[in-house]
Amino acid sequence: MDPVSSVDFAKGDGFVTAIALDDASGEVLMVAVMNEASFRRTLETGEAHYWSRSRGKLWHKGEESGHTQRVRGIYLDCDGDTLVLRVEQRGGAACHTGKRSCFFRKLEGDRWLDLGEQVFDPKEVYGR
Amino acid sequence: MDPVSSVDFAKGDGFVTAIALDDASGEVLMVAVMNEASFRRTLETGEAHYWSRSRGKLWHKGEESGHTQRVRGIYLDCDGDTLVLRVEQRGGAACHTGKRSCFFRKLEGDRWLDLGEQVFDPKEVYGR
Repeated sequence: MDPVSSVDFAKGDGFVTAIALDDASGEVLMVAVMNEASFRRTLETGEAHYWSRSRGKLWHKGEESGHTQRVRGIYLDCDGDTLVLRVEQRGGAACHTGKRSCFFRKLEGDRWLDLGEQVFDPKEVYGR
Repeated sequence: MDPVSSVDFAKGDGFVTAIALDDASGEVLMVAVMNEASFRRTLETGEAHYWSRSRGKLWHKGEESGHTQRVRGIYLDCDGDTLVLRVEQRGGAACHTGKRSCFFRKLEGDRWLDLGEQVFDPKEVYGR
């Protein structure tokens, strides 16, 4: 049976939510969307592929920065419209800001505190 | 400053993605959406409130089952359209199936294996 058939892309107009966790620490690294083509490409290659809404194209995560994600486990939720990927994050950072995780802001009282760990300098990596 | 102003509800037509993690284990329990009203209610009460798309209303998680979520930490991602909540899950299960986590299916080869831990019987809890 094709495992892709259990994933409900129809509900989200062709997209599902994909959450990447650091396989070693369990930390939430980032959240993106996948269409069927990106999920199939992820299965074929073992590297996380998402859909870039801003660029309107298949997005091999890390294609520009080299910070790709090796997939170590894939989980599907009860209603089939959200995936969790446990990944090995190459370069140690998933966020385009150069921080390890995109979720670097924590609410303390009325303020969002930046608790992010800076892994790389985005100016050096992206050259802009 | 109002912490809600840092959350970008506009991009998702009034909604952001909200991921609930078990505060003790770090496990991903469930994913839902919040509108501004549900986020404000979450902040005011310390209990997770989402938006129910199926019922078209504010959803106090656990209002029917008693399995509410006490919020222990709130994180916001780099572009402000996704929240992570670390919660204490009352009753030990977040999924309407009675399983601890909604992400109980794991891909092994070409098959989704059910690795879920059954915490409660949904027939007993929901009476249907």
